[in-house]
Amino acid sequence: MNEALFKYILRIGDTNLILGQRLSEWTGHGPFLEEDLALTNITLDITGAAKSLLEYAALVEGKGRTEDDLAFLRNDRQFFNVQITELPNGDYARTIARQVLLDCFDFYFYQELSKSKDETLAGIAQKSLKEVTYHLRHTSAWLERFGDGTEESHNKVQLALNELWQYTNELFEMNEDDELLIKEGIAVDLNLVKTKWEKHISELVEKSTLTIPQNVFMQTGSRKGIHTEYLAFILAEMQALPRMYPDAKW
Amino acid sequence: MNEALFKYILRIGDTNLILGQRLSEWTGHGPFLEEDLALTNITLDITGAAKSLLEYAALVEGKGRTEDDLAFLRNDRQFFNVQITELPNGDYARTIARQVLLDCFDFYFYQELSKSKDETLAGIAQKSLKEVTYHLRHTSAWLERFGDGTEESHNKVQLALNELWQYTNELFEMNEDDELLIKEGIAVDLNLVKTKWEKHISELVEKSTLTIPQNVFMQTGSRKGIHTEYLAFILAEMQALPRMYPDAKW
Repeated sequence: MNEALFKYILRIGDTNLILGQRLSEWTGHGPFLEEDLALTNITLDITGAAKSLLEYAALVEGKGRTEDDLAFLRNDRQFFNVQITELPNGDYARTIARQVLLDCFDFYFYQELSKSKDETLAGIAQKSLKEVTYHLRHTSAWLERFGDGTEESHNKVQLALNELWQYTNELFEMNEDDELLIKEGIAVDLNLVKTKWEKHISELVEKSTLTIPQNVFMQTGSRKGIHTEYLAFILAEMQALPRMYPDAKW
Repeated sequence: MNEALFKYILRIGDTNLILGQRLSEWTGHGPFLEEDLALTNITLDITGAAKSLLEYAALVEGKGRTEDDLAFLRNDRQFFNVQITELPNGDYARTIARQVLLDCFDFYFYQELSKSKDETLAGIAQKSLKEVTYHLRHTSAWLERFGDGTEESHNKVQLALNELWQYTNELFEMNEDDELLIKEGIAVDLNLVKTKWEKHISELVEKSTLTIPQNVFMQTGSRKGIHTEYLAFILAEMQALPRMYPDAKW
């Protein structure tokens, strides 16, 4: 059970960690000052959730590792984040398109997780849900603005949706860990989340005068530690300092 | 008077903007997760203050420019930030050394500015003072930790202090704009701030088992738009996107 729980928390924590890392590339480079601040705030919330989750994962594992050990001393095959978080940010339309897909997932996922029998997970989910409610509002407004904006912005965000869509199914994949933990009332049944997510996203996409790509081949792999070629580069950059000074005392 | 006030606000706003830009380079690259979050929070506060100040500067100027015009469409000779903010971050010890010098300045500066007869400036100062009180506590603790830590950390932070010290006098320079605005009860007498800053920093440096370098030649120039070679590079990166699409509608 502990092993399943450890991997389950890692999956959520890693997804937040890698997404936060990607988003942090925008800090100081947002399209204008106010948006730079807004996106950096979102980045902080997401990285903060990652820290709480990895801290808890380390505790559940019970081998004396810390959240920093988990963040900085694992290699790419030991990460379980969904692959969509690894993809390069691209232009702002693409960053927003990815973010709205993930915010919407998190919104329904955390709603369910906040009812978990695992009180620590439930607590983290409750805190994150408040934050994600704001993120989703913010990124949804942007999706509409891009979709219903100029021809150029419309085309850019539609192209982003077309290319990102293949990574969405991974959000809802479940394995034997999920099965075990759902029975215990700890994990979330992702089929429930999927139904709500699909309805929400299809309405939002339509409202934004965009379309959802059809008959897309869906990527898979992250549950088994299989990733795009980008993850190793993200980790190389993120882990360089702690790995160079593994025993640094701060 | 408006011209003096405009330039006065720019000076404070630019100092925050360029410092925030430099600090943002650490986002996602902090030495460990918790500190990454803490420094990103500080970055957000500082960039937020920059936005408020440039917004107000644009209003005072009254030529229809926005805070984004001021941030993205001026060249380096039109920036009035103090030069210490432009310097590369260096290692974490150096980033912290610079930050504690500036946090301490801001702490006493905003205390005075919060009594300004200009209500907008006073309001911004009151908000910033709350934030800076926390920043100063955080960076002071780090300075002690580095100074009173290992021989390596002690040497690194002492070297940083030695090299940064020449940029500290610029913080307290005043010109005819200050003179005019002090008479109106708007600007802060920086001699007052200097006395408090010197006392505070010398106590902190001593407590951290460090020493303040003596007989240092002091840099000057930023009040006249003269900068180190680094500013142009910061602006090139920061301004690339808005300059490429000057009339972008978001």
